Amino acid sequence: MNLKIAVLPGDGIGPEVILQAKKALYAIGEVYNHEFVFEEALMGAIAIDKTGNPLPEQTLNLCLNTDAVLFGAIGDPKYDNNPNAKVRPEQGLLKLRKELGLFANIRPIKPYKSLLDASPLKREIIEGADFTIFRELTGGAYFGAKTLNEEGTHASDLCEYSEEEITRITHLAFKSAQNRRKKLTMVDKANVLETSRLWRKVVQKVSVNYPDVALDFLFVDNAAMQIILNPKQFDVILTENLFGDILSDEASVITGSIGLLASASLGEKNALFEPIHGSYPQAKGKNIANPIASILSAAMLLEHFGLFKEANVIHQAVEKAIEFKVVTTDLKSDSKFGTNEVGEFVSNFI
Amino acid sequence: MNLKIAVLPGDGIGPEVILQAKKALYAIGEVYNHEFVFEEALMGAIAIDKTGNPLPEQTLNLCLNTDAVLFGAIGDPKYDNNPNAKVRPEQGLLKLRKELGLFANIRPIKPYKSLLDASPLKREIIEGADFTIFRELTGGAYFGAKTLNEEGTHASDLCEYSEEEITRITHLAFKSAQNRRKKLTMVDKANVLETSRLWRKVVQKVSVNYPDVALDFLFVDNAAMQIILNPKQFDVILTENLFGDILSDEASVITGSIGLLASASLGEKNALFEPIHGSYPQAKGKNIANPIASILSAAMLLEHFGLFKEANVIHQAVEKAIEFKVVTTDLKSDSKFGTNEVGEFVSNFI
Ligand SMILES: CC(C)[C@H](C(=O)O)[C@@H](O)C(=O)O
Ligand SMILES: CC(C)[C@H](C(=O)O)[C@@H](O)C(=O)O
Repeated sequence: MNLKIAVLPGDGIGPEVILQAKKALYAIGEVYNHEFVFEEALMGAIAIDKTGNPLPEQTLNLCLNTDAVLFGAIGDPKYDNNPNAKVRPEQGLLKLRKELGLFANIRPIKPYKSLLDASPLKREIIEGADFTIFRELTGGAYFGAKTLNEEGTHASDLCEYSEEEITRITHLAFKSAQNRRKKLTMVDKANVLETSRLWRKVVQKVSVNYPDVALDFLFVDNAAMQIILNPKQFDVILTENLFGDILSDEASVITGSIGLLASASLGEKNALFEPIHGSYPQAKGKNIANPIASILSAAMLLEHFGLFKEANVIHQAVEKAIEFKVVTTDLKSDSKFGTNEVGEFVSNFI
Repeated sequence: MNLKIAVLPGDGIGPEVILQAKKALYAIGEVYNHEFVFEEALMGAIAIDKTGNPLPEQTLNLCLNTDAVLFGAIGDPKYDNNPNAKVRPEQGLLKLRKELGLFANIRPIKPYKSLLDASPLKREIIEGADFTIFRELTGGAYFGAKTLNEEGTHASDLCEYSEEEITRITHLAFKSAQNRRKKLTMVDKANVLETSRLWRKVVQKVSVNYPDVALDFLFVDNAAMQIILNPKQFDVILTENLFGDILSDEASVITGSIGLLASASLGEKNALFEPIHGSYPQAKGKNIANPIASILSAAMLLEHFGLFKEANVIHQAVEKAIEFKVVTTDLKSDSKFGTNEVGEFVSNFI
C-alpha cells in the first residue's frame, strides 16, 4: 500500500514522540512492503513563532490532500497564562479538526496486563476494563460563538449542537458497540442543559436501528465517578466534545499513564491520529516523554487503512516493551530508558 | 442559639436521609441548649406532583426568611429520559440557588482513616489527601440562555460569567486557602473557552491581595486526571459551575463513597446545606441510603453559625459510626445496618 501521511509534530514533546511513531511506521513499511511517504508541516505554537499563524495555509492544504495526518501535541505555557493573547496554538488544532471535518474522536481505554499495578486504582477495579470513548469533536462550546465585552468584564461561550452533528457520530458509536460487547452509554447533563436533551432525543431516535445494542444514560457528574468506581461497566461511551475531553483524560488513569493512550479522529474524508496527552513542555528535549501513545496512534492509522496485521505487530512490540520494562519513567520511576530507547525497541522488534 | 431552619427533603432518598440529619440536630439542641425550629417545604419532583411547580412560591418565601436551608436531594427518572418535559425537578433547585444568591458551593474532600481501604484508589494515593472544592453555583451554562429551534433539531446553552461573579467566590476561596495550606488551584479550560480566560484574568487580579497563597492553574481535563493520580497535591480548588459539578462527584471516590460528602452553599444573606449525592431513586424507601452526607451537611450548618464545638461532636459521632462499622452497604457490602440505624447511632452518640 502507498500512503501519503502529513506529519505535524507540533509543540513541546510532540516532535520527540512523533519521531518514534515514524520510525515504527518505517519499520512496518520495510517489513511488509508498504510505501509511507511523510511530509512534515507546522502547527501550534511553533507555527505561530515561525509564521504568525497556528495553522498555516500550507499545512492545511497538505492535510486536506494526504491520506492521513499524524499529529503530536499542541500548547505552550506562554499563551496559557496570558488571557489577552490574540493568537493561540490551540486555535490551529481546532481549525484543523473543523476544516477536515473530524467529527469523531475515538479513544480506547484498556489496561495492559503487566501494568495492572501501575494505576492509582486497585488492580481488582481495573482488571478486565475495556471501553472506548466516542467524543464528538467539531461542535459544542469549542466552536460556538465567544464574546468578551469591551471593558473585558463579561465573557461567554456558546455550546451548540444540531441533530445532524449528533446523528453521524451516534451511528459510528452504535456500530462500534455492535462489534464489541453491545452496550452504549450516553453521557450528558440532560437535567440541566438543552443541548444534552437534544443529544438524548437524537440518540434515542438513532438507537432504533441498533436493537441489539443496550443503551443507557448517565449524567456527566455521575459518569466521572463511575469511571473510577467501576470502569468494567462500560463498553462504548458516547459524549459531546468537552465532556469527552474531560472524561478521556480522567479515564487514562486506568491504564497507569496518559502516555499510553492513542486516539483516532475521523471525518467523512479525512483522518487524523494523535496521542491524547498534551505537549508536556517541562519534559521537552529531555528524552523522558513516553512515545507509546504516538506509536499506538500510528497503529490506529494502520488499522484505519485495513492493515490489521501490521497494526497488530505494533501492538505486540509495545506489549513486549512494557513486559520487558523498556518504558519511560511515567511507568517505572527508576527506569533507565528514555523516549528514544523505547522507540528503538519497538521499531527493532518489528 | 435560636435557629429557624427550612427543611426541603426533596426527592428519592432525600426524605430518609434528611430525617437523620434532623435527628442529629435535635440531639445537639437538647444537649447544648439550642432551639432549632424546623419548617418543611416542597421542592423538586414531589413539588411538581403536588403543585405543578418545582419551587412553589411558599417554599421560596420560607427559604428567604429562615436562617438556613437544609436540603436533601432532587430528581426523578421520569423526567430524565423525557427530553420534552417542560417542567423539571432540577429547575426548582437551580431557581432556589439563584434566588437565594448562593454563589459559592463548598465541598470538602478528606478520607476517613478507617475507610482508607474502601476507596477504589490505593491507600497510598489517598492517605493524607485533604482538599476543598469551591464551585461557583449561580453562573455558567446552568443559567445562561437556552434555545431549541421549532423543529427541535438545534439546541444551545450559553455559558456566561462576569468579573463580579468571579471576584466574589475567588475572595472566599483565597480566604479559605489562607486558613489551610495556602495553595489555590484554579481549574479551567483557558486554552479553549473565553469564559475561562476571564476567570484566569480575574483570579490573577484578586490574587495580589493574598500574597501568602500560592496560585496555580490547571486545565480541567488535566485536573480530572490529577485528582485521581495525586489528590494530595491539592488544597483549595476553585472552578466554575459545571466543572465543579463534575470534579466534585469524581473526587468523592477518594473518600470511598459519595454518601459521605456534604456541601455548603453560601450567599451574601442565605446559606443552604446539602449532601452532594443525588436522589438515588432505586434506593428510595429501602432504608439503604447512607445518611452521613446529610448529617455532615447539618454539621456544616452548625459551623456556619459558629457552633464549632457542636459540629465537632457530630464529626466525632460519624467517625465512631464508621470506626465501629455502623455503616450502610455502600461502605460495607455485607452490612446489616441501614439509613435509620446509622442515624440512630449518630444521634444517640451525641
Ligand atoms: C489542546 C486542546 C485544545 C485539546 C482539546 O481540548 O481538545 C486536547 O486537550 C485534546 O484533548 O485533544
Ligand atoms: C441535580 C443537579 C441539578 C445538581 C447540579 O448539577 O448542580 C447536582 O448534580 C449537584 O451537584 O448539586
